Amino acid sequence: MPDAARPDEKNASVSAGGPGGIAHWIGVDWGTTHLRATVLGEDGAVLAEYVSGDGTSRLGQDGFEPALLDLVGAHLAPDRATPVVACGAVGSRQDWQEAPYRSVPCAPVEPDTMVEVPTADPRISLRIVPGLCQSAPADVMRGEETQIAGFLARHPGWDGVLCLPGTHSKWAQLSAGEVVSFQTFMTGELFALLGGQSVLRHGIAAEGWDDAAFRQGLEDAQARPERLAAQLFRLRAETLLRDLGGTAARARLSGLLIGAELAAARPYWLGQEVVVIGASEVAEAYRAALATQGLRAAVVSGRDAALAGLAVAAGLLRGRAA
Amino acid sequence: MPDAARPDEKNASVSAGGPGGIAHWIGVDWGTTHLRATVLGEDGAVLAEYVSGDGTSRLGQDGFEPALLDLVGAHLAPDRATPVVACGAVGSRQDWQEAPYRSVPCAPVEPDTMVEVPTADPRISLRIVPGLCQSAPADVMRGEETQIAGFLARHPGWDGVLCLPGTHSKWAQLSAGEVVSFQTFMTGELFALLGGQSVLRHGIAAEGWDDAAFRQGLEDAQARPERLAAQLFRLRAETLLRDLGGTAARARLSGLLIGAELAAARPYWLGQEVVVIGASEVAEAYRAALATQGLRAAVVSGRDAALAGLAVAAGLLRGRAA
Repeated sequence: MPDAARPDEKNASVSAGGPGGIAHWIGVDWGTTHLRATVLGEDGAVLAEYVSGDGTSRLGQDGFEPALLDLVGAHLAPDRATPVVACGAVGSRQDWQEAPYRSVPCAPVEPDTMVEVPTADPRISLRIVPGLCQSAPADVMRGEETQIAGFLARHPGWDGVLCLPGTHSKWAQLSAGEVVSFQTFMTGELFALLGGQSVLRHGIAAEGWDDAAFRQGLEDAQARPERLAAQLFRLRAETLLRDLGGTAARARLSGLLIGAELAAARPYWLGQEVVVIGASEVAEAYRAALATQGLRAAVVSGRDAALAGLAVAAGLLRGRAA
Repeated sequence: MPDAARPDEKNASVSAGGPGGIAHWIGVDWGTTHLRATVLGEDGAVLAEYVSGDGTSRLGQDGFEPALLDLVGAHLAPDRATPVVACGAVGSRQDWQEAPYRSVPCAPVEPDTMVEVPTADPRISLRIVPGLCQSAPADVMRGEETQIAGFLARHPGWDGVLCLPGTHSKWAQLSAGEVVSFQTFMTGELFALLGGQSVLRHGIAAEGWDDAAFRQGLEDAQARPERLAAQLFRLRAETLLRDLGGTAARARLSGLLIGAELAAARPYWLGQEVVVIGASEVAEAYRAALATQGLRAAVVSGRDAALAGLAVAAGLLRGRAA
């Protein structure tokens, strides 16, 4: 699948809604590889949006607050604490401060379960959204619960299945405003490791797409999902013996991994209403894959859902059906 | 599964059968991560054995000959060319010199198909063993054909299935002294990537074993092999939620991946006589896994098989049933 962008530069402003301005609140999506901050005005308008490569995995305990201030400091009022709401890996045990998992079934986000984090700088008042856990089968999520809450805020009372593709794809069953169950697949991480670091890297393009190859991968994986480790090596062999091109190999690898995921997630999507929440390219790949199974899934922007979910967490948006 | 040793030091003599001495011939197993050279005397005795981290993946075109001489130079007669026979990745297109694949069905090694490689140093006469390829399904091997030839030399006329676990595990069907078909699985490479570089690395020990956890992984994978990407993430979740230990997680990861391989390789082993050729730890894991399926497989040392196969390639040992 198309990989997420990985900006290594700091302070990369990806869009600016105005000439700066003082924040009313700030929403932060802080994963292992990225820090994304959205600065919002009193009327809810986006004043600025920043993304940097300061993911939690590259920061030590002393690095979190400076990394955040580095991005949004210019938008802070000098004389009061601006609310900052963060979701994602930043709340995991080894990161800034643990926000213990909440157990499903439960609403994806409850404003009164937020974890307050003390900061040295009095200009921010930081709270972290707890992730969700499931005891059997054991599973965890951090960040996706916020996207789910955002989706529910926009579609109150919606029941069905959400597919959230990414490094660790999630499938979540929703009912009556709660996450009933969910399951994680390491699809995105496998794609990155296999395409970038395994022997397959020699024959796999860094970007590009080939729809027919993607569909072939989907079909191969869904027909014989248990043969994945052999189907993967066939990419290498066909590169050597049949001049399989790098773009086709990339798309087929994506098809194989997404196809295997769909085969395993079948109890989730079969006969269900499914919405895919994610970045446009990867969400589109999942939509197309589901379409080959006769399932018409809607696609929703992952960033929009995350921002709406952060607003729910901040207590600024109603997050669940009454 | 237990990972192969990865010596980073050069010139590590792992065993020395004598105080040096002049080589009658030298067998070389040269993979992407290792260079292993065995120095043999006129009577076939091992005079010395060396292994270094000079795998083909870290050497440029100019690096091969010096790396080899660095290891075995002290054993070369000054006044004649000592035969050196090499197998493995060294014969691939991007390495020292391509030894084009031979298509199955065929004998694993035929002395008259060896590829001669010119060297600057007149004290060696180098030949590389060609790998094998299969057109449908597309597949390739380099190095395992030599182990197969060595096994056949020791067991002339043997028919059955060989399992050669490793970075890229191979299953090969043998009949009448020929490799009839084979299939590769990326099991070892997946184990290394997932255990060392994915999110699972936080909860996986670098070594150690837990037999019960290995068996649980085997069972989970064989019961639902198509659910691999979900079963993998469960290791992470159980590390977080149930304090799954690093040794148990490592053994369960091995069990999951070997179990998925066995499920996919079922057409190869079902009802067959199977011999596992490999390093002791990993071969033992496969033997135990096959035993859970009611199959009693013999185990043969991969190094012994490789050395015997190199002797076949050198024309010094009879390699196939008449």
